[in-house]
Amino acid sequence: MNTDLQDYSHKRLNILTGEWVLVSPHRAKRPWQGQNESISTNVRPAYDETCYLCAGNTRVNGEKNPKYQDVFVFTNDFAALQTDSKSFKIEDDLLVAHSEQGICKVICFSPDHSKSLAEMAVNDIQKVVLAWQEEYTTLGENPNINYVQIFENKGAVMGCSNPHPHGQIWSQSTLPNEVYKKDVHQYEYFSKNKSSLLGNYLKQELDKQERIIFENDAFVVLVPFWAVWPFEAMIVPKKHQKNINEMSDIETLLFAEAISVLTKAYDKLFNCSFPYSSGIHQAPTNEKDNDHWHWHMSFYPPLLRSATVKKFMVGYEMFGSPQRDITAEIATQRLKELL
Amino acid sequence: MNTDLQDYSHKRLNILTGEWVLVSPHRAKRPWQGQNESISTNVRPAYDETCYLCAGNTRVNGEKNPKYQDVFVFTNDFAALQTDSKSFKIEDDLLVAHSEQGICKVICFSPDHSKSLAEMAVNDIQKVVLAWQEEYTTLGENPNINYVQIFENKGAVMGCSNPHPHGQIWSQSTLPNEVYKKDVHQYEYFSKNKSSLLGNYLKQELDKQERIIFENDAFVVLVPFWAVWPFEAMIVPKKHQKNINEMSDIETLLFAEAISVLTKAYDKLFNCSFPYSSGIHQAPTNEKDNDHWHWHMSFYPPLLRSATVKKFMVGYEMFGSPQRDITAEIATQRLKELL
Ligand SMILES: O=P(O)(O)O[C@H]1O[C@H](CO)[C@@H](O)[C@H](O)[C@H]1O
Ligand SMILES: O=P(O)(O)O[C@H]1O[C@H](CO)[C@@H](O)[C@H](O)[C@H]1O
Repeated sequence: MNTDLQDYSHKRLNILTGEWVLVSPHRAKRPWQGQNESISTNVRPAYDETCYLCAGNTRVNGEKNPKYQDVFVFTNDFAALQTDSKSFKIEDDLLVAHSEQGICKVICFSPDHSKSLAEMAVNDIQKVVLAWQEEYTTLGENPNINYVQIFENKGAVMGCSNPHPHGQIWSQSTLPNEVYKKDVHQYEYFSKNKSSLLGNYLKQELDKQERIIFENDAFVVLVPFWAVWPFEAMIVPKKHQKNINEMSDIETLLFAEAISVLTKAYDKLFNCSFPYSSGIHQAPTNEKDNDHWHWHMSFYPPLLRSATVKKFMVGYEMFGSPQRDITAEIATQRLKELL
Repeated sequence: MNTDLQDYSHKRLNILTGEWVLVSPHRAKRPWQGQNESISTNVRPAYDETCYLCAGNTRVNGEKNPKYQDVFVFTNDFAALQTDSKSFKIEDDLLVAHSEQGICKVICFSPDHSKSLAEMAVNDIQKVVLAWQEEYTTLGENPNINYVQIFENKGAVMGCSNPHPHGQIWSQSTLPNEVYKKDVHQYEYFSKNKSSLLGNYLKQELDKQERIIFENDAFVVLVPFWAVWPFEAMIVPKKHQKNINEMSDIETLLFAEAISVLTKAYDKLFNCSFPYSSGIHQAPTNEKDNDHWHWHMSFYPPLLRSATVKKFMVGYEMFGSPQRDITAEIATQRLKELL
């Protein structure tokens, strides 16, 4: 391992976005006197009559959830994007605004209110993956939809307002900022090298074995070299696939296994139901020329030192660049020991 | 006022960074069932013997603070960047890391432990501004320093670990991500139009009067058209100035007035000591050709609905684009009523 990276301040390049993260390894020792998060240690029941996501319960808009058995998808009752909203364009010199249409969905991972992905069987996680595939297809068929953002906010500290295991899918007509950046950088690399940026990165990582947490036949779970969040991780398919629909049946099971292994290690790390936001970045649905895309799923967990002390991305991070103390290599070691 | 912007989902362009914010005005009505922040209602003493920032007290490294009367600046005891750290460069195909040197300082705004900028006299805020100018000059004279990031994290929810009124200054050899983006976009505009991007934007805003909170002879306080945080605001000098050192003495007082007016309005909004991260973006210190820069100070406050309910920038925001519900125009009205 290169020891300079463990001893001295440096910045690392995110090859997908073109942006940098500042790493200050020597700073991991500073004491913490700031805000502590509260952890909920309540054991949740398998069914909660006040939960609007539990099977058979009624939601705010009066609709009743079906008595679903595994995965249940519905359109968000408070959707940030709507299909029928007005189209307009304002380009008044330096004031630029474009209307945006979309469809926002909620996906319940399980009827069991008490579970999280980490606690679900790999088979049941696979059902979630199959539902993601179906949503990517059907949403993508809508001519107004060009991008499908699958994500999960887990834990109150990540703004999740209901502990029932669920994620969201926001799909829309244009590419969001982060996707646009990754589109550009993958495209540039692919045009020049005729091979996948992330595929070649993966080869380097498999060769070095310094940031690999886990691998199976189809997937690698690793802490990216440019990770921002203390225990950020990424699941990358070994094959060069543009989107999640290119996975075969057996690959969806192996992807579910990778999710299971990572989320279980997370829960063990600080002995709590580990909060995070996760998301899948993949090719736009409407573009024809997407061969440069190599889909992947990322996990951004906020916790830094314990179940109650998180990393704050504030002042310097908001105005300058993201900053971290513990290095990607140390984070990998700690997660790997928990497998 | 354009009513489409108040009624339908749209994205707005940040002309300084080239990135978009998703605005969903119809969504402001959704109920909140998620995490609440705790507010500290403790009245703080003017002096706290356990505070490592109070005058005369001893810090973690054994150094004793002087009996300072107004502003006190010292080098951060847990600096993320150091001047004497090793220089190296790793460019191992897709693994790219460069060492980064810098100087991190802490600036105590007042010896009075109980105060915040909102509660300080304009004269005393001016002393903080003068100290910022001095730091910009002296740090900038260091050949290893090319950028000086002045910022404040206020409130426990913004990762601030000590309520004593203070900010930070992280200075370094290269431009952080956010500064780089603003450098590029201002440069492009200035090369083409031979006038300041932000100066021309200001003219449009002063003409429309829809997002102006306050102005005096030298400064405008406004909610930028592309604001991300619910009550985000920006202080912009009317003159095209590259950096804070171009302010005259009277202008430093008028800048202090603008800070005072804005932070007082913030405190009134939800009747609490309003948390935020603020920061000044200005020209790099070493570059010769910086005429395109127009410095400004931004405030990113997290609160959304009350002293305890904040906006979470999570899943969609991390993987897609920032998203807001309440529009910049409504936020302006609410802040303006409190002046
Ligand atoms: O330097 P402090 O106040 O200890 O730390 C705070 O501000 C820093 C700069 O924005 C952040 O990196 C830290 O996460 C935050 O807790
Ligand atoms: O949609 P929810 O779960 O109510 O809301 C949560 O996720 C959204 C998408 O990341 C965010 O915009 C909200 O700030 C957050 O509280």
